[in-house]
Amino acid sequence: MTRFASFSDLRAACLDLPEGSPNAAAEAIRREAMLTKPPRSLGRLEEVVAWLAYWQGASTPCLDHVEILVFAGNHGVTAQGVSAYPAEVTAQMVANFAAGGAAINQLARIANAELRVIALDLDHPTADFTSSPAMDEAEFLEAVVSGYEALSPEADLVVLGEMGIGNTTAASAIAAALFGGGGGRFAGHGTGLDAHGLKRKQKVIDAGLARHGAILSDPLRAAAAFGGRELAAILGAALAARHLHIPVLLDGFVCTAAVAPLAKLRADALDHALAGHKSAEAGHRPLLEKLGLLPLLDLGMRLGEGSGAAVAVLVLRAALACHTGMATFAEAHVSDKDA
Amino acid sequence: MTRFASFSDLRAACLDLPEGSPNAAAEAIRREAMLTKPPRSLGRLEEVVAWLAYWQGASTPCLDHVEILVFAGNHGVTAQGVSAYPAEVTAQMVANFAAGGAAINQLARIANAELRVIALDLDHPTADFTSSPAMDEAEFLEAVVSGYEALSPEADLVVLGEMGIGNTTAASAIAAALFGGGGGRFAGHGTGLDAHGLKRKQKVIDAGLARHGAILSDPLRAAAAFGGRELAAILGAALAARHLHIPVLLDGFVCTAAVAPLAKLRADALDHALAGHKSAEAGHRPLLEKLGLLPLLDLGMRLGEGSGAAVAVLVLRAALACHTGMATFAEAHVSDKDA
Repeated sequence: MTRFASFSDLRAACLDLPEGSPNAAAEAIRREAMLTKPPRSLGRLEEVVAWLAYWQGASTPCLDHVEILVFAGNHGVTAQGVSAYPAEVTAQMVANFAAGGAAINQLARIANAELRVIALDLDHPTADFTSSPAMDEAEFLEAVVSGYEALSPEADLVVLGEMGIGNTTAASAIAAALFGGGGGRFAGHGTGLDAHGLKRKQKVIDAGLARHGAILSDPLRAAAAFGGRELAAILGAALAARHLHIPVLLDGFVCTAAVAPLAKLRADALDHALAGHKSAEAGHRPLLEKLGLLPLLDLGMRLGEGSGAAVAVLVLRAALACHTGMATFAEAHVSDKDA
Repeated sequence: MTRFASFSDLRAACLDLPEGSPNAAAEAIRREAMLTKPPRSLGRLEEVVAWLAYWQGASTPCLDHVEILVFAGNHGVTAQGVSAYPAEVTAQMVANFAAGGAAINQLARIANAELRVIALDLDHPTADFTSSPAMDEAEFLEAVVSGYEALSPEADLVVLGEMGIGNTTAASAIAAALFGGGGGRFAGHGTGLDAHGLKRKQKVIDAGLARHGAILSDPLRAAAAFGGRELAAILGAALAARHLHIPVLLDGFVCTAAVAPLAKLRADALDHALAGHKSAEAGHRPLLEKLGLLPLLDLGMRLGEGSGAAVAVLVLRAALACHTGMATFAEAHVSDKDA
């Protein structure tokens, strides 16, 4: 592998990040002020247009090619009974994605987005993080690269999502590794654990945090230690998007935890990413707050698959339609406020 | 006029409300539980499908014919300097709607909805409510009927919106008449009043509340006293929707204040209505809370025109696409939680 040959190689790439175009954003904001509406009355619709303009480097942003990347992985930690569903569901759901039967298939269609599902070595779950690192350095970097290279360079916007039975446990462990608080802070009911199962999940996370205590201060090593491959791939895809000036919509808790190591390495690393929604999974709200991300939607969704972010694509399309289609005060002969 | 010949005639119609179909809702909920996702993991997307099923009386709801009705009216109270824009903007914006240049034109297109704009006697503003009732009984009933009859009986969903310079003042006065608290409780910056203008607006509302103190306990007379025609028409359209079993998406503060008298007359009168969004206009949050309405979106929008509710149509379309398009566990051969 030539790209990212080591943790330190990847770390260097995570620290070398381009900015967007302030001029493009300023021009988009200037146009918003001329459109037939009171200033800023479209609220976040105006903000997301300026954000798209900034990262696309285009005063009139474009959403012609929206890509939804869903990464799937399996987790050795499921042996600890941390999920309400059996591990074979990951592969079954990947087959369901291929057949067009999952929620994300319907939402991708509604959002006019291209859905691509990347299954990562499902037959070989990552190791159980309570006894060893989920992935060694080479396995982790391979997963990161598979995400980094999955992104189409010509995409206008990328939605990141995941599928992986057991992955809210990995995500909670990563979040706790980065931000402290132990298994109780970020663990939630996932796909439907009962109270007893949640207690067990918290203990499993605490065991993992104790097992890997020596490397918790290293965000990339922590991501490798807790897994899984789909989270590492999301990190890689988010990094690629930044290097390619492609704005990102994050989905829920797992997706946000997957990219959190980037923000820990460099505080502005997620400026090109917007939280598509706030998941009902308990850990998402505190994690969003830690990362300073303000979600677009709050619909009580907790499915993953990129589903919440796919709904948020609709909001971006609405925003862009207003920006490009509305008449200015002058064009419409409407009296402006100062008239 | 045969329909609603008097306040008491209209009041009787407001008290005579049909229910939806519990069977249709139960069948929709049963299907949701079979789809390839953890139970209730689509959150409000599942709830809105059941709500649509209940009011449409169809276990598989339909959004083939979504209608956006935007009512426009002019307000004599603008003479008191309560708006940042001159009153002629109402007619100018109606022309902008006709030409396709407003935000709602773009949003209607994105939402695949039919936009209809009904301008109500713009050349004759309602009376200034600080000196007399905005409308007498006949004027009010005529406006209500124009809304009642604007709705297409074959619509699957109706979005209600408005345009009217000065109408956040009327809306704040109605809300305060129904729920108390005076001009300070519901008045906000509207299209962009400064702090001085807001103080004036609050005083104007308090003067109106004092002027019409004798009828404040009568919700319909209060709606007539404060106006305007577009608010009365929205009340009529929401009532027609209930009588026709058509679910309603409410827009922002003005729209919600317009239908609030219905809820004051009968507590369950707005069960067929969903708040499309929470507006940034200050009075909307307390009014939604008073009415027990939980908005779908919170995007800092405060434009009116039905714009926030039109964005919410996209969420309903996403919800319905999942409901109708997803595979069941059995169809997709995915192991269910209890397997």
